[in-house]
Amino acid sequence: MTQTHPPASVIPTTGTPMTDQASTVAAVTDAEIFAGHEGGKLSVAATRPISDPRDLSIAYTPGVAKVSRAIAEDAAKAKRYTWADRLVAVVSDGTAVLGLGDIGASASLPVMEGKSVLFKTFGGLDSIPLVLDTTDVDEIVETLVRLRPSFGAVNLEDISAPRCFELEDKLKEALDCPVMHDDQHGTAIVTLAALRGANLVLGRDIAGERVVVSGAGAAGVACAKILLAAGVADVTVLDSRGIVHAGRDDLNPIKRQLVETTNKAGLTGGLAEALRGADVFLGLSGATIDPSLLSTMADDSIVFALSNPDPEVHPAVAAQHAAIVATGRSDFPNQINNVLAFPGVFRGALDAGARAITENMKLAAAEAIVAVASDDLGPDRIVPSPLDPRVAPEVAAAVAKAAEQDGVAG
Amino acid sequence: MTQTHPPASVIPTTGTPMTDQASTVAAVTDAEIFAGHEGGKLSVAATRPISDPRDLSIAYTPGVAKVSRAIAEDAAKAKRYTWADRLVAVVSDGTAVLGLGDIGASASLPVMEGKSVLFKTFGGLDSIPLVLDTTDVDEIVETLVRLRPSFGAVNLEDISAPRCFELEDKLKEALDCPVMHDDQHGTAIVTLAALRGANLVLGRDIAGERVVVSGAGAAGVACAKILLAAGVADVTVLDSRGIVHAGRDDLNPIKRQLVETTNKAGLTGGLAEALRGADVFLGLSGATIDPSLLSTMADDSIVFALSNPDPEVHPAVAAQHAAIVATGRSDFPNQINNVLAFPGVFRGALDAGARAITENMKLAAAEAIVAVASDDLGPDRIVPSPLDPRVAPEVAAAVAKAAEQDGVAG
Repeated sequence: MTQTHPPASVIPTTGTPMTDQASTVAAVTDAEIFAGHEGGKLSVAATRPISDPRDLSIAYTPGVAKVSRAIAEDAAKAKRYTWADRLVAVVSDGTAVLGLGDIGASASLPVMEGKSVLFKTFGGLDSIPLVLDTTDVDEIVETLVRLRPSFGAVNLEDISAPRCFELEDKLKEALDCPVMHDDQHGTAIVTLAALRGANLVLGRDIAGERVVVSGAGAAGVACAKILLAAGVADVTVLDSRGIVHAGRDDLNPIKRQLVETTNKAGLTGGLAEALRGADVFLGLSGATIDPSLLSTMADDSIVFALSNPDPEVHPAVAAQHAAIVATGRSDFPNQINNVLAFPGVFRGALDAGARAITENMKLAAAEAIVAVASDDLGPDRIVPSPLDPRVAPEVAAAVAKAAEQDGVAG
Repeated sequence: MTQTHPPASVIPTTGTPMTDQASTVAAVTDAEIFAGHEGGKLSVAATRPISDPRDLSIAYTPGVAKVSRAIAEDAAKAKRYTWADRLVAVVSDGTAVLGLGDIGASASLPVMEGKSVLFKTFGGLDSIPLVLDTTDVDEIVETLVRLRPSFGAVNLEDISAPRCFELEDKLKEALDCPVMHDDQHGTAIVTLAALRGANLVLGRDIAGERVVVSGAGAAGVACAKILLAAGVADVTVLDSRGIVHAGRDDLNPIKRQLVETTNKAGLTGGLAEALRGADVFLGLSGATIDPSLLSTMADDSIVFALSNPDPEVHPAVAAQHAAIVATGRSDFPNQINNVLAFPGVFRGALDAGARAITENMKLAAAEAIVAVASDDLGPDRIVPSPLDPRVAPEVAAAVAKAAEQDGVAG
């Protein structure tokens, strides 16, 4: 398991923001943070109150027996008369939690609860965190297969690479419902949307661009794949040892797959070699970058420095070399945040009764995000705000439509 | 798996109630029942709204990282900053659902959702249904052990006997949190409370009584045990082949244990032999009983005909022979319903940070139920109404106190 992100101790949630430029979020104190998590962040509510014996006999015995029997006789009725079909399991083993690394299932739970809060707030979706005291991929698959009647979709979260690739593949094989590792595909969808938005601002097309992806973990691999699927001319991926190319003998199976599809120019070396003449830098590794390298990129370059909490390069510095800059942070413009994708993606998949989340559904999600931003695009506004309430419904509708088109809808 | 209850098709939720006597619940139509379950009965809510970037940076990144790191450094902080410590997993494998038998996990989900509704309504407790697509006891234990960081207690539900005994024992061994099979102990607690209430009305003491328990499934076995623990003079248990006694060679290990503690008189035979001179009949088997046998009981006998939906004997008929009659139904007086116990029991156990649910905690729960009823006792009011809002808080306080006394509190 790689642990490339800086420790959480450097997260500047107290004190002064990174710069005084474009700071949209006032400093949050530790006391406020801990108070905001006291007792946990979720509760379960009844959709209908129990206020008299009649309510009780409908929701519980004897009435409920009729509903259970109806499902026993026709399994499809579970979709209609239980919450499972609209419930997302937010699953983690705590091996790659934010920038904190392998801190265990229990310590990952506040993040999963936060994810459930966002699912509800933006997607109107119910979800339950399931954090697992095992890191064995097959055991995680087995556990979710046993629990299959309890939920309608699985959002994998904060699971270390390269295990996350194997886990997602095996789960998709084992479960007949939407499964998505958000650190991979949520990031990829929003990054593609942001790159499309940036190109609209610049009057260019991503089809002609060469993209450098720094980082070959969950997000880096998924971003490379979706950019190629969206028609980007070429993608060069780097891991901690440099450019991923056919001549290396230290590649894991996932990176070996990348050799087949990326780096058409056959570049070798490191970031200096990769960035020369490139149109887009996409930072997903947490490794800082020498700003002078950005000056070797093509004119009007695009720099997405997405590592949290510390971007690969300060956006003010990057702006000296690039036409458009984005980060993952809420206190700079152009925040590339997964919350733009996952609530709508799962909402759309569940609305459509989809049996899986296809590549086309992800591409459709990215296009929907771009469409919401399109009426108000600018160099500092290549994606909608993470709090924009229009995004999730638009993403959901596009994803549901793509599910129909791909023949995976229910 | 035994399936002694009548099929759900005979549940008189439509049409006229069983008699026109004491009918407190108007007929509920099928349309009302199914409408009451449409889309499922639960939803997940955020305890604090996300309405601006500041809220987002507290509940999710970057703020949540501080909370996760605090738990990674001090595991005990999970109790304070996640919902796990106050969350009950409502677990079933769907093998003994109401009177419907082994209808599977998915068909059991409406019942588990209903249970969660009752946990919330009466105990103010959050809970999530986890229904399992396996009936293997060790696999169920293994699954819940893996999920241990996700919840704070386990309510087992609708699991067939004798598997339920083995499962509960193994789970209690494997998990350091409250575990209770409600079909056993919830029923036992409320039955003990009702018997204490009935004796208060009659001015007697259960210590001098002989009780006949018809049924040696989950509820029958647990009721026999709690009654003996509460000081009942003697208990005679019957299964489908008659009185459980030392001379039988067809007893499973659970029933063999009963031989050690029950049937002090060494009775053999069937219900006729058991009931002669008995003070209390406790029906938990679904098998109908010849009313004339009730006339052979001691004077001022007590009859609890608890099978649902059809009591072992009609309460109006039983009343011709017995001083006090109770059923499990809401449309007759003296409804013995588990909802009087489980919300308060789990609430008290979680409030106390209990590592287990002890026998004393169950006895304390029963006494608390009796205490709530005591200011208004009568032959038709030996237990509080299932909707009495005083019950769960009183039960919770008594259970928490007993946990402290037993040294299992956190």
